[in-house]
Amino acid sequence: MITEKDVLVPLDVPADYHDDYIANYLRATQNTGRLMLFAGDQKIEHLNDDFYGDNIPEEDNDPEHLFRIAQNAEIGVFATQMGLLARYGMDYPDLTYLVKMNSKTHLVKTSQIDPYSGQLYDIDQLLEFKENSGLNIVGIGYTIYLGSEYESDMLAEAAQLIYECHRVGLITVLWIYPRGQAVIDEKDSHLIAGATGVAACLNSDFVKVNAPRAKDGQDSAVLLKEAVIAAGRTKVVCAGGSNAEPEDFLKELYKQLNVSGAEGNATGRNIHQKPLEEAVRMCNAINALTIRRVPIEEAIRIYRGE
Amino acid sequence: MITEKDVLVPLDVPADYHDDYIANYLRATQNTGRLMLFAGDQKIEHLNDDFYGDNIPEEDNDPEHLFRIAQNAEIGVFATQMGLLARYGMDYPDLTYLVKMNSKTHLVKTSQIDPYSGQLYDIDQLLEFKENSGLNIVGIGYTIYLGSEYESDMLAEAAQLIYECHRVGLITVLWIYPRGQAVIDEKDSHLIAGATGVAACLNSDFVKVNAPRAKDGQDSAVLLKEAVIAAGRTKVVCAGGSNAEPEDFLKELYKQLNVSGAEGNATGRNIHQKPLEEAVRMCNAINALTIRRVPIEEAIRIYRGE
Amino acid sequence: MITEKDVLVPLDVPADYHDDYIANYLRATQNTGRLMLFAGDQKIEHLNDDFYGDNIPEEDNDPEHLFRIAQNAEIGVFATQMGLLARYGMDYPDLTYLVKMNSKTHLVKTSQIDPYSGQLYDIDQLLEFKENSGLNIVGIGYTIYLGSEYESDMLAEAAQLIYECHRVGLITVLWIYPRGQAVIDEKDSHLIAGATGVAACLNSDFVKVNAPRAKDGQDSAVLLKEAVIAAGRTKVVCAGGSNAEPEDFLKELYKQLNVSGAEGNATGRNIHQKPLEEAVRMCNAINALTIRRVPIEEAIRIYRGE
Amino acid sequence: MITEKDVLVPLDVPADYHDDYIANYLRATQNTGRLMLFAGDQKIEHLNDDFYGDNIPEEDNDPEHLFRIAQNAEIGVFATQMGLLARYGMDYPDLTYLVKMNSKTHLVKTSQIDPYSGQLYDIDQLLEFKENSGLNIVGIGYTIYLGSEYESDMLAEAAQLIYECHRVGLITVLWIYPRGQAVIDEKDSHLIAGATGVAACLNSDFVKVNAPRAKDGQDSAVLLKEAVIAAGRTKVVCAGGSNAEPEDFLKELYKQLNVSGAEGNATGRNIHQKPLEEAVRMCNAINALTIRRVPIEEAIRIYRGE
Amino acid sequence: MITEKDVLVPLDVPADYHDDYIANYLRATQNTGRLMLFAGDQKIEHLNDDFYGDNIPEEDNDPEHLFRIAQNAEIGVFATQMGLLARYGMDYPDLTYLVKMNSKTHLVKTSQIDPYSGQLYDIDQLLEFKENSGLNIVGIGYTIYLGSEYESDMLAEAAQLIYECHRVGLITVLWIYPRGQAVIDEKDSHLIAGATGVAACLNSDFVKVNAPRAKDGQDSAVLLKEAVIAAGRTKVVCAGGSNAEPEDFLKELYKQLNVSGAEGNATGRNIHQKPLEEAVRMCNAINALTIRRVPIEEAIRIYRGE
Repeated sequence: MITEKDVLVPLDVPADYHDDYIANYLRATQNTGRLMLFAGDQKIEHLNDDFYGDNIPEEDNDPEHLFRIAQNAEIGVFATQMGLLARYGMDYPDLTYLVKMNSKTHLVKTSQIDPYSGQLYDIDQLLEFKENSGLNIVGIGYTIYLGSEYESDMLAEAAQLIYECHRVGLITVLWIYPRGQAVIDEKDSHLIAGATGVAACLNSDFVKVNAPRAKDGQDSAVLLKEAVIAAGRTKVVCAGGSNAEPEDFLKELYKQLNVSGAEGNATGRNIHQKPLEEAVRMCNAINALTIRRVPIEEAIRIYRGE
Repeated sequence: MITEKDVLVPLDVPADYHDDYIANYLRATQNTGRLMLFAGDQKIEHLNDDFYGDNIPEEDNDPEHLFRIAQNAEIGVFATQMGLLARYGMDYPDLTYLVKMNSKTHLVKTSQIDPYSGQLYDIDQLLEFKENSGLNIVGIGYTIYLGSEYESDMLAEAAQLIYECHRVGLITVLWIYPRGQAVIDEKDSHLIAGATGVAACLNSDFVKVNAPRAKDGQDSAVLLKEAVIAAGRTKVVCAGGSNAEPEDFLKELYKQLNVSGAEGNATGRNIHQKPLEEAVRMCNAINALTIRRVPIEEAIRIYRGE
Repeated sequence: MITEKDVLVPLDVPADYHDDYIANYLRATQNTGRLMLFAGDQKIEHLNDDFYGDNIPEEDNDPEHLFRIAQNAEIGVFATQMGLLARYGMDYPDLTYLVKMNSKTHLVKTSQIDPYSGQLYDIDQLLEFKENSGLNIVGIGYTIYLGSEYESDMLAEAAQLIYECHRVGLITVLWIYPRGQAVIDEKDSHLIAGATGVAACLNSDFVKVNAPRAKDGQDSAVLLKEAVIAAGRTKVVCAGGSNAEPEDFLKELYKQLNVSGAEGNATGRNIHQKPLEEAVRMCNAINALTIRRVPIEEAIRIYRGE
Repeated sequence: MITEKDVLVPLDVPADYHDDYIANYLRATQNTGRLMLFAGDQKIEHLNDDFYGDNIPEEDNDPEHLFRIAQNAEIGVFATQMGLLARYGMDYPDLTYLVKMNSKTHLVKTSQIDPYSGQLYDIDQLLEFKENSGLNIVGIGYTIYLGSEYESDMLAEAAQLIYECHRVGLITVLWIYPRGQAVIDEKDSHLIAGATGVAACLNSDFVKVNAPRAKDGQDSAVLLKEAVIAAGRTKVVCAGGSNAEPEDFLKELYKQLNVSGAEGNATGRNIHQKPLEEAVRMCNAINALTIRRVPIEEAIRIYRGE
Repeated sequence: MITEKDVLVPLDVPADYHDDYIANYLRATQNTGRLMLFAGDQKIEHLNDDFYGDNIPEEDNDPEHLFRIAQNAEIGVFATQMGLLARYGMDYPDLTYLVKMNSKTHLVKTSQIDPYSGQLYDIDQLLEFKENSGLNIVGIGYTIYLGSEYESDMLAEAAQLIYECHRVGLITVLWIYPRGQAVIDEKDSHLIAGATGVAACLNSDFVKVNAPRAKDGQDSAVLLKEAVIAAGRTKVVCAGGSNAEPEDFLKELYKQLNVSGAEGNATGRNIHQKPLEEAVRMCNAINALTIRRVPIEEAIRIYRGE
């Protein structure tokens, strides 16, 4: 457990908003400085591919499935677009929310044109929505495709959003994925360390990256160390990635958190592509690993419901 | 019939505008929550192709034909560009209007360049027009071409328009069509379910999509179920599509409404490409199916004027 | 002759500006509702090609030739760029002016890139200029190239300009030409009817189109009927087109006005590429056809100075 | 010599600024209505090619060389970018300045992409700088590449700058060069006449064009007449062009001024690519031709220091 | 040592900010007018390539390494992105900072598309940050890629930033690198002189360029003279370039400062890719050469810690 004094307040947060920033930071991190982020922005990012199909339970097709999981499980923040909050938030008023500020579909491939994901709202609208809705919105998320021909647009939008969020005491998470025709290997550990360094230069509180591909006999969690250190005082959060066997997923996450120094995780499909009760157990297992730093065996027991 | 208490008010509607939103919603849906939208935006979208030519009665060439139908038939809203309202609204002051906020012609094909349909007015102008004209404008429409290289522009414009509309109690309908060189099959049911999910994330009240193409022995209305559920609390409205035999059209609509769970329809050519009196009967038949949920036989009797 | 009560005031004109709108409309149309527009925007559109060369009198090279004609002839409005008004208007203070708000040169051809003509001033500047100059500016003109890849930019600029003009009681004329690599036949009558329908949806008071190409044994004036009806309450004005034999030109115009239902004309080269005195007679002949609806023989006599 | 009453004040100059406009106009033209413009914007336009190399005296490499010439010679205005004024103006407070508002380098050739030269400051900043610096800034310059694919951007920026300058009594000079892949012959006299006509439509006080190429046995100065007349009340100023033999240059200028009707010149390299004392004599010779309209022999004597 | 009276205050600095400008200038230049700039913006520009890998000490991977060096060494200004200042500045409150206002990664190569580096913040945000953070921010840096197809965007952003900085008494450093498919030799001395001339026209206080490539038997420092003179009153600062043998680097810098007339240096990798203690000694050696103008032997002794 950390306390208010342990929270590093970036210098772009005005004195009047230090308390808000600290409160948002502590709430998001469950008073630990570590982040368990339940990612629910895929309805735009992946359209219905993540929610309907073989091996996906029918209930996942209903957007409310995400809220039901978030409501019943232990999580830090539930991250999704503002639109879903506006339509379901009244029934889930106690959750902690992070608003994903940009999104794109996966229809246009990088082989056709480099990716750009544009900002949907500005921070004044976000604040007005927070006020009107009464929801516990603690911060924002934004995706940058590093190495895209549109990189400069996303770097500028991210810099602006982070600056404007900090000005009013909100926290920030950057999703940074190297992607574009100039990018040979999106999961190269050295490139990912470049990405986390960019997040530091942009002053984000957290940065979500993909776990690096194992190489030269070193496994992903060891290779991720470079990125964790390169991020400096910005904390690294690992993306859950595509659907894996639950226990393998937990073991991999355990290593990321305990070997690489990553301070959190951001998981979506590995949670919501399960029936509610199983999804909740998976969430709780992930949260236990991330927040309480339990041994892997305990996390597996939680997942199994033992 | 539903009442004020049955209307879900999205959280971006400020408390001061709850009553306006509810009133607009109930008026547009004829107090049912279901939407019969008479679509009249094709004079830009399809130029004069829908209004003049073989099998189209001469009176359809006069834009006032649309207003005459709307005046004499039972409909929920008449959707068209603000310009037509400004020139005919004084003679049709009692209709319920939805303003289509963007439009493009069909001259430039997707084989040449991906589609973009740009916003013509902002919401401040719409509100000023509503005030100056005294017309019953209950909301707006906006078209997104998902999968276009210009998708990000349209996603952002839609997000902004919906936010600004809800702020003043207006309702919204998104027209979402997957289209662009990246889109293989615009009428694939799974892709259409992606589209309705995007509408939910953008917080639209209604989303108009094309009916999916039948496949694997499942018919369109059954396949549409995926999209209806994926849309969550955003309601799905089916586009009328190209001109069909009237009774076939009504039978298809009946299935959409009663099998898929869609809560409305948006029909243009199948209504206005008929002489006034027949167009009115067609409108009334559609409205009866949509709003009163009559059996198909009754709808056909209405159309036949029996 | 029409009176104030006969003028349809579009609903985007605020009540406080109804009188201004009506006064501008009546002045522009010489109290008839019909428009004789003397087009003088070609110094940008066609550079010096329309003003200097074989069969063009030397005096046409001096921009003041246009003003001298407008001063001495009967016309409705003289349409040109604001810059020329600013340099000659002090000597021609009694003319009725329409300001052309966008212009491009003809150097870049459609075979190289699709056409875009950008807005040069905003309406606030136009109003300030009207005030500072004291000139009788009754409205604006704007060109749209329908079917260009930049169509959406021009549709949006036009919609905005029309809205802002009407807000202060000014009238509007759209020049709409289908043009771009997607356009096969710019003078197809059905396509031109599409163009006039777009003008209606954009709420323009007048729309200037090229006369359609004769086809299938039907002549241009007959084919133009489709466009006149498709325009609804927006009035169609025919472009004068390239230089023709004077009497042939008058005969063609006569048919346009009396067969197709067009309510005006917009003529440039067929007027100013003549010595002053002849140009004035030509103008008067055109005005007599358009405004007083004289028989063709009388117009020819006017032109001949008989 | 002309007086205040001889200055045509364009109608976009508000009454309160008539005196300022007239004063600026008279100062720039040395009370003659004719303009001797010393062009010193090449440090961006041509990088260091005009200032260092074979046949260029070493002192030309120091930007202050330009100011030293302007200080010691008779000129109308010294035209350069605002940045140089900000760094040298304190030592040359009595000069008359024209600020060049846009500039580009010559690195990217037309064969690669069509030219665009972007605006660097807005008029509010220019006025603030004039106030803060106390310098005698009488107007602005702006370059348009007519026939470029970016023509519309430059036409709009020029229109805006001229409008905003006139609003506060400043004068304007457009540099207009036809250039782009669509332009076959940049120095065709008919095309240059198109360019000066565009300047008139944009309401510029002066327009600087290249002298046309001689053709069909007619020399440049004769051919330039078309452009001078096409410019109407906008005055034509001839560009000095590339470095020529001094006396040939003066003879050519003499013809331009006395045959074509051009009312000024804009010369850079032919002045500053000489040692200070010779540059001053060249300047004075040019000024004598332009302003005092001396015979060519006298100008040559001035240049020779006889 | 120079004093307040020796500082040239550009004319765009308002009188009220003269003292601030002078104070910032003297602080940045350690009261000498010469600039020792420790460049730390590579975490975006070069991603993690400059901070992790063969021959780079592990401590360089931690962003705080940069701050530790700056804290313990003699430098003029430490230049980096605002984000890093926001996260480390509270522990290094006494340093003198320059904020790098734009940045791009090196992923997209010039062979793919010409370079553009976009502005991340505006000056109002910078000033607000300076106020909120209490850090000693004396000015800004901005990179222009001259000869890029996006040159006009960067010229305009630079002109605006410099103007806005000077308005509030901040100093400016431009990084100018010729780069793009139109640029044959980025290190040609004549081209670099063009670059420094552009900086003068844009009114920057300092311009950082790469040292020219030796050619025709003349070495880099001699060739740099052209650029130093072409820059006029804007001072030239040499980029440190890629990692060289320390003593060779110092000798080269010595020549630049003493032969070419350059008045400073900007060094990054040659400093921070060393263990802290060695990096500090290197920094001090560079500072001694730049600021105290010590002989090369003394600088080498400082580096060796003798």
